[in-house]
Amino acid sequence: MIKNFRTVPNIVFGKGCFYQLDNIIDKRRQYTDSWVAFLVDDVFVATELESRIPQHDDDLLIWVNVDDEPKTTYVDRLTLEVHNHSRTLPCAVIGIGGGSTMDLAKAVSLMLTNSGCSHEYQGWDLIKNQGIYHIGIPTLSGTGAEVSRTTVLTGPERKLGINSDYTVFDQVILDPNLIKDVPGLQRFYTGMDCYIHCIESLQGTFINTFSRAYGEKALELCRNVFLDDEPESEEKLMMASYFGGMSIAYSQVGACHALSYGLSYILGTRHGVGCCIAFDYLEEFYPEGVKEFREMMKRNYINLPRNIISRVNEEQLEKMISVALSLDPLWENCLGKNWKEIMTREKARSLYLKM
Amino acid sequence: MIKNFRTVPNIVFGKGCFYQLDNIIDKRRQYTDSWVAFLVDDVFVATELESRIPQHDDDLLIWVNVDDEPKTTYVDRLTLEVHNHSRTLPCAVIGIGGGSTMDLAKAVSLMLTNSGCSHEYQGWDLIKNQGIYHIGIPTLSGTGAEVSRTTVLTGPERKLGINSDYTVFDQVILDPNLIKDVPGLQRFYTGMDCYIHCIESLQGTFINTFSRAYGEKALELCRNVFLDDEPESEEKLMMASYFGGMSIAYSQVGACHALSYGLSYILGTRHGVGCCIAFDYLEEFYPEGVKEFREMMKRNYINLPRNIISRVNEEQLEKMISVALSLDPLWENCLGKNWKEIMTREKARSLYLKM
Repeated sequence: MIKNFRTVPNIVFGKGCFYQLDNIIDKRRQYTDSWVAFLVDDVFVATELESRIPQHDDDLLIWVNVDDEPKTTYVDRLTLEVHNHSRTLPCAVIGIGGGSTMDLAKAVSLMLTNSGCSHEYQGWDLIKNQGIYHIGIPTLSGTGAEVSRTTVLTGPERKLGINSDYTVFDQVILDPNLIKDVPGLQRFYTGMDCYIHCIESLQGTFINTFSRAYGEKALELCRNVFLDDEPESEEKLMMASYFGGMSIAYSQVGACHALSYGLSYILGTRHGVGCCIAFDYLEEFYPEGVKEFREMMKRNYINLPRNIISRVNEEQLEKMISVALSLDPLWENCLGKNWKEIMTREKARSLYLKM
Repeated sequence: MIKNFRTVPNIVFGKGCFYQLDNIIDKRRQYTDSWVAFLVDDVFVATELESRIPQHDDDLLIWVNVDDEPKTTYVDRLTLEVHNHSRTLPCAVIGIGGGSTMDLAKAVSLMLTNSGCSHEYQGWDLIKNQGIYHIGIPTLSGTGAEVSRTTVLTGPERKLGINSDYTVFDQVILDPNLIKDVPGLQRFYTGMDCYIHCIESLQGTFINTFSRAYGEKALELCRNVFLDDEPESEEKLMMASYFGGMSIAYSQVGACHALSYGLSYILGTRHGVGCCIAFDYLEEFYPEGVKEFREMMKRNYINLPRNIISRVNEEQLEKMISVALSLDPLWENCLGKNWKEIMTREKARSLYLKM
């Protein structure tokens, strides 16, 4: 059975298109008591963006904090806050921010119509009911969260996404102006999430022509942005992220993402940073990609965090290895069906110990 | 206002995925009297494909003939045939064939739920009601009909699409095996539709970064197929067509498509053939594209039809020019806002007289 995948069915792309949000939401406000829940990254408190959020009287605006990676407990708390706002459900949930904020908006949209706690849905196709109509508006580019069918959450047991057709946004608004003030370091780390997952998917064993077309173009756009420093780089970075996300339709990420999940779980390392830290030690698996990645770091004056594992005790290291090795599809994509013979616990340990 | 465009929300891509059609349709058969209308290109009568169409007892299979380009009168006749099959509407309309067949399926899906004649809806956003759920299954690649928001029809007055968000398929099934037996000439002409509309859109004045990313990759895939004769060329051609169609989201075709519409209207020239005939005389507008196109013709042993205008009388030539010049957005995309100063009736006449 070949995957029949769901895409974001409505897309608007272009500088300044954020102003169309009110108009787009209006089509959903069918009743006099229709209201909207905005989940917005709290870095935008008291910024120009705040004044441009088209919040109507009955709407709820929640500033979300994503200093830490999104947790299932946080999703459940936010869902309760939305429930408590009104006796009716919102007609739309809008996520404005980077990958974490968009993932929170996706998860809240799902949890408003699916009972229980969000950690119960970590996995594949466990969601039973369609979520609330939800819109994604990225203010950071690279994660691909704007097109993916997952919302990656750290739960009590593991870091794992809620993967479902219902997770996909109903609408995305891709306004390159929204990413032009991202601090350089964050822009780089998040952009590298895209670069690295393209390398992993293109070199993987799962790839097909569909995903290859998207992945190759995403990679080319990343090179334009991080090596050639071409004009219109915000627009290109936004497209790289979108294409990179689409390329995952028929492929998977690989060794780097698996190891970075272990770092995030134990050390709380942000996803993009964790990917960069791990990727720099994966030359034996991705020789050309790592070489080019180092060139990108050089051109963008990046100094990676080093020796982060020195803070980790033996028990934590063991757990880190377990988290990474639990991600079978990622390893199979990278190393083939017999991946366990290559990526032993000892091998994973030796990689972590370099970081 | 930047266009908020609708994409095909469900896609399955891969060799052999056609067999999943029955399963995909089954999700739409909610009632015991649910039935499906298949519109299938009549070149498949008594072929292996016929035996693989998952037709249930109450379903209707119509063999459509697309020797001529689709006409609004034909759409109206097909719609009536579907209406007459049952007192209920079908739960799905499935188009299996090339661009013309897929366009017929789109148009019938719309006309089943919108009153009147199809020519009344030629234009932009005139459709009022959502059509019947419709699936596109290409057996020819290049037109982009599988992703476009139009169904191009020849009406009493003109050749013009029914352009609407409702026109877009709800599902496409992209099975490269279905295009592997296309005769070489047809494969070339239809593939060139994609190549040419990418050249027109990439060189046009309307393009943005979104459409550029899709158009550039589509062009590269066309080169792989028609210049480099790479392996997996069916898969690449199918992706080129899909990307080429997506690239139109924020761009337009240009001079070649406009002139080819005149050829189709008066001479009934098939769209792909008409595009090739016209493109060969458009070196002054698309110098590099025409050069590469000629190389592709050479490598694929193509001899273009010549002197086709010798069959045309003065009145027909005048009408041909009027049809071509009525397509304002195409000319504006090609030549800018002052296009009328460049593409006069005399200029258009001189181009047609070469063909």
